[in-house]
Amino acid sequence: MSAIPTEVQVQFDAGQLVAAIAQDAINGDVLMLAWMNQEALEQTISSKKGVYWSRSRQSLWVKGETSGHIQEVVDISYDCDGDAILLQVNQVGSACHTGERSCFHRQIFTSAEEK
Amino acid sequence: MSAIPTEVQVQFDAGQLVAAIAQDAINGDVLMLAWMNQEALEQTISSKKGVYWSRSRQSLWVKGETSGHIQEVVDISYDCDGDAILLQVNQVGSACHTGERSCFHRQIFTSAEEK
Repeated sequence: MSAIPTEVQVQFDAGQLVAAIAQDAINGDVLMLAWMNQEALEQTISSKKGVYWSRSRQSLWVKGETSGHIQEVVDISYDCDGDAILLQVNQVGSACHTGERSCFHRQIFTSAEEK
Repeated sequence: MSAIPTEVQVQFDAGQLVAAIAQDAINGDVLMLAWMNQEALEQTISSKKGVYWSRSRQSLWVKGETSGHIQEVVDISYDCDGDAILLQVNQVGSACHTGERSCFHRQIFTSAEEK
């Protein structure tokens, strides 16, 4: 039996993947964007740990399995057209492999610079 | 001249798109996930309004152009591998076409249910 509730209609793309945003459940920081196939989403729900699909390695990827930087998943929602999901997580350590807390640590633009 | 700083190396995918997360600059809510091509990103930077690429319509899409629910962009960052960007926005009205503030208004899972 799938861990995904039957009424939930996630729209996996042509590559059988859905975009998954991980957000810090405590402070709201967006930590990373990764991808899930159905099995990754099922394992995430059943284990309450962030599990993704690695497009580069073409394999399931339990976030933090080697680094210890796991994600305890407290809530999952999905968007209006079903092709993106949002996870609220308690992130142990850093989400980013660079050691930064969030993968989004490089700035492209800020309106504050013009003040 | 491109509005994208030369040192910024965004990795557009095979379809020439990059995933773009819009986050409420005030309360941190994740509002939507959409897609940008280079022109959408350039117009977003130069206009300071959220401009995306509509995959369904295959055209540039100025968010709120018809609804009035524009996004004033205050900050843009990008992730460690350059294939996702994060916008901090002041969202006028609703981000979602359903009238909900955020597109992520449907729940798949919560750990709170088990308490």
